[in-house]
Amino acid sequence: MNASIITIGDELLIGQTIDTNSAWMGQQLNKAGVWVRRRVAVGDVWDDIWRALDEESKYAQLVFITGGLGPTADDITKPLLCKYFGGTLVTNEGALENVKTIFSKYLDRPLLEVNLKQAEVPDVCTVIQNKRGTAPGMMFRKDGCIFISMPGVPNEMKGMMQDFVLPQLNDWFELPAVVHRTLLTAGIGESFLAERIKGFEAALPPDIKLAYLPHYGMVRLRLTITGADKDVISARVDEQFILLQHEVADVMVANEDISLEEAVGKLLVEKHKTITTAESCTGGYIAHLLTRKAGSSAFYKGGVVSYANEVKEGLLGVQSGTLQQYGAVSEQTVKEMAIGALKTVQSDYALAVSGIMGPDGGTDGKPVGTVWIAAASTSKVVAHSFHFRFDRQRNIDLTTINALIMVRKLMLED
Amino acid sequence: MNASIITIGDELLIGQTIDTNSAWMGQQLNKAGVWVRRRVAVGDVWDDIWRALDEESKYAQLVFITGGLGPTADDITKPLLCKYFGGTLVTNEGALENVKTIFSKYLDRPLLEVNLKQAEVPDVCTVIQNKRGTAPGMMFRKDGCIFISMPGVPNEMKGMMQDFVLPQLNDWFELPAVVHRTLLTAGIGESFLAERIKGFEAALPPDIKLAYLPHYGMVRLRLTITGADKDVISARVDEQFILLQHEVADVMVANEDISLEEAVGKLLVEKHKTITTAESCTGGYIAHLLTRKAGSSAFYKGGVVSYANEVKEGLLGVQSGTLQQYGAVSEQTVKEMAIGALKTVQSDYALAVSGIMGPDGGTDGKPVGTVWIAAASTSKVVAHSFHFRFDRQRNIDLTTINALIMVRKLMLED
Repeated sequence: MNASIITIGDELLIGQTIDTNSAWMGQQLNKAGVWVRRRVAVGDVWDDIWRALDEESKYAQLVFITGGLGPTADDITKPLLCKYFGGTLVTNEGALENVKTIFSKYLDRPLLEVNLKQAEVPDVCTVIQNKRGTAPGMMFRKDGCIFISMPGVPNEMKGMMQDFVLPQLNDWFELPAVVHRTLLTAGIGESFLAERIKGFEAALPPDIKLAYLPHYGMVRLRLTITGADKDVISARVDEQFILLQHEVADVMVANEDISLEEAVGKLLVEKHKTITTAESCTGGYIAHLLTRKAGSSAFYKGGVVSYANEVKEGLLGVQSGTLQQYGAVSEQTVKEMAIGALKTVQSDYALAVSGIMGPDGGTDGKPVGTVWIAAASTSKVVAHSFHFRFDRQRNIDLTTINALIMVRKLMLED
Repeated sequence: MNASIITIGDELLIGQTIDTNSAWMGQQLNKAGVWVRRRVAVGDVWDDIWRALDEESKYAQLVFITGGLGPTADDITKPLLCKYFGGTLVTNEGALENVKTIFSKYLDRPLLEVNLKQAEVPDVCTVIQNKRGTAPGMMFRKDGCIFISMPGVPNEMKGMMQDFVLPQLNDWFELPAVVHRTLLTAGIGESFLAERIKGFEAALPPDIKLAYLPHYGMVRLRLTITGADKDVISARVDEQFILLQHEVADVMVANEDISLEEAVGKLLVEKHKTITTAESCTGGYIAHLLTRKAGSSAFYKGGVVSYANEVKEGLLGVQSGTLQQYGAVSEQTVKEMAIGALKTVQSDYALAVSGIMGPDGGTDGKPVGTVWIAAASTSKVVAHSFHFRFDRQRNIDLTTINALIMVRKLMLED
């Protein structure tokens, strides 16, 4: 079962918008046993959209179309779909009701003519109700292919996928069962990991696929199996997954498909412990990652962003003598920051980071990319230095990842 | 001049990776006067890559290929390109030198056979040196079309684009001049904005295009003109841009293509003022946005993430009576948080946020999405409540945006 995703909108081609929709859809469809074979982005250009519909339906039995359904004049997608599938635009009562409800309930603004027009759909489609917005989704069938058109607003698209598309996939198509097993490694490069598990990979049964999914100093390893009977294939892939975990035990940070910060959060919850953060160069990013998933208040009470030295002193109790003698980016400073945060925020563990993220601020002794990280428990504090060589954003990411790896290690040893 | 971007890798199709490369390339090419007509993502599948090369070169005179050049066994792109363009794989001395240099200088690990193989390229290509990684880029020509193959690692691809591709575009093609003028509005929906500037839009000269680029409660408006003489078209678009700024003056937060947090940072630098943050529900995200661009230490000394009430009391001096009487999500609490942050971090302005981001934690009186935001200067504190109705991540985004809008307004009135 192949699917193709067409995203429509000039904003994607000029790079104004990053296409997170396709990634989310790919994840969901993949889990459901549908292989997204291609993703295509085209502009708000009649011929290009038309040609994409023709071409993608040759590759796939299921074609998703997102975007191009907004209320402004430059959207040509709906009239095009109407013509492509040979219909006439008519007002859909359910969609009209929905537009009115959303305006009266949430928007507290007068309904405009353009908003009412959003309730018009081709009479040859099945309407997909949009509970989170005014533009309805549409389903069409043509030559054995199903086409699903949805708005480009992420949470509207997600709602339609969850409420309408995903539950019906098995009615539309006979899908095989797909089982994935994923683990996360950190601190080892893709090629070294590949070298290490060469033997395991060579011995894998041919219907179990191994994928390397590298991302910023971490590599996710994923085993995938497809088959008719979910229980049977689950048992087979689990057998290999145990072997794989064994091969990479020392570099594995999670034996499931979660992020590093989720792994740290989970470990804290299991241990009934809390963590705090004292961030200089990462400017709050570590705190953000720890708290962006629900449930973080169980292990995170708060933290300090201490960009300036006076904040390191005032809020974290770093000695001014330490800052003068060793500088803000030093082993001594990050250790004092971590210990200070532990006390100030009354937590069980603390992370402290201080570094030169660039592009300016480097010196001969401490070039851009120099970072000190400390991890502390109530009985121990460790610190390491790092030398990254990338751009600012990537230095922030790498500092964050290494800090989380360090505190995880400290927790496991504790 | 049309370009097409082909990204290769199963990780894109299964949604493991979000394709930020294409967005960045789209931005750069667009500024240079190259229109990215299509973007296509395909998996690590020989036939699909081959077919994409055939198809996209029909649409475009410039085809970019990213990804598929890593050291592990599942990468088939290089042999495919070799065959597609009719060459033989040979070791490139410059690329080999580069692999060795990167390993000895940065990686401090032994060179593996797979790493050396990265220096092999088809003998029919022009090698694009990769200063930031081991996989060289390659340029091919076929049937009047230029193909550029680069690794998928973002900073490696960006380096090659900046050092090699973008500077040569004008040698390869005769490109017209393109001038954009962009402004950022906040607090007004796309359809209401369209309604308001209907007259302006109708009166625009036909060669000046207006684009609406909405994103989370903000809408960017962009005027674009293309022509032979950059000075002439600049003057013409500037004339319209002044009119447009006038139409939206009350909702405009920047008259250039920058983010809201950059606009706030710029205003602070202009005023020689500093800002601090007291974040509960956004968990450090506002601090992160303010500090992720270089230069933020000029206006940001630090802040507090106060998830738990005890941190609101201990670090920000919120009265326990206030928390008991009004709760953590209240006007009184965020005002005390903002005033406390001003004092603790010794800044000129402060932002404080407290809310229920969901999915849990809501009550009848304060449902999920309820947020209080305060903005304070040394002489004034204002607070507003908001009721968002989205998911956690979007609630965090919207809280952040509205907080930045509020503090910007306060600064302008000050």
